[in-house]
Amino acid sequence: MSARVEVSQLDPQIAARLRRTPDGLVCAVTQQRGTGEVLMVAWMDDEALHRTLTSGRATYWSRSRQEYWVKGDTSGNTQAVHEVRLDCDGDALLVVVDQQGAACHTGTRTCFDADVLLAAPTP
Amino acid sequence: MSARVEVSQLDPQIAARLRRTPDGLVCAVTQQRGTGEVLMVAWMDDEALHRTLTSGRATYWSRSRQEYWVKGDTSGNTQAVHEVRLDCDGDALLVVVDQQGAACHTGTRTCFDADVLLAAPTP
Repeated sequence: MSARVEVSQLDPQIAARLRRTPDGLVCAVTQQRGTGEVLMVAWMDDEALHRTLTSGRATYWSRSRQEYWVKGDTSGNTQAVHEVRLDCDGDALLVVVDQQGAACHTGTRTCFDADVLLAAPTP
Repeated sequence: MSARVEVSQLDPQIAARLRRTPDGLVCAVTQQRGTGEVLMVAWMDDEALHRTLTSGRATYWSRSRQEYWVKGDTSGNTQAVHEVRLDCDGDALLVVVDQQGAACHTGTRTCFDADVLLAAPTP
């Protein structure tokens, strides 16, 4: 997996701040600009982050398929990247996007729409 | 690590839907109710999720300290849990809370305030 890090063109000053899993990944939380909806959670390696920062299209590392995944390339439900932030300990990214259509492969707007474990009453 | 899963009192119907890391964890994204701010990303095992769902206080598994961590017990910056959702593939939780004070241990409101990697101009 470290080969992926070595070949990445990610800015070395950013790469030095990342704290990766043993697989070389950081967690990416994707949020809709404006509404603040949390759309999905996925993973990026250095190169996926580099492509996200430079292409304007949210790009992830698919753990199941072991390949880069430009969101929307298959579904048409693209994510135009507006903002990217790294968290205080370098192991999570916040990616603010304009989501076209459904973010979830099930067809729902977000990946968190279907399974509500707890819904507290509004006070 | 599997011992933690075995001793958890988490509802078996929820536990069956979780897809955990090899360490027995799922990713938890914590969001402020109302404003939609993404406050932090942390981790939960089955028991941390059980405690979060039943106590009304966001409770995580600290990978660095290898112990349960009730947010705010030390800092006073508590998280009252309003809503918990599981994502489509069972490996990420969205925890909607009322955050008291700063969510980040650095003293900022969120863990994503300090390190902006990309800020696209507003069109």
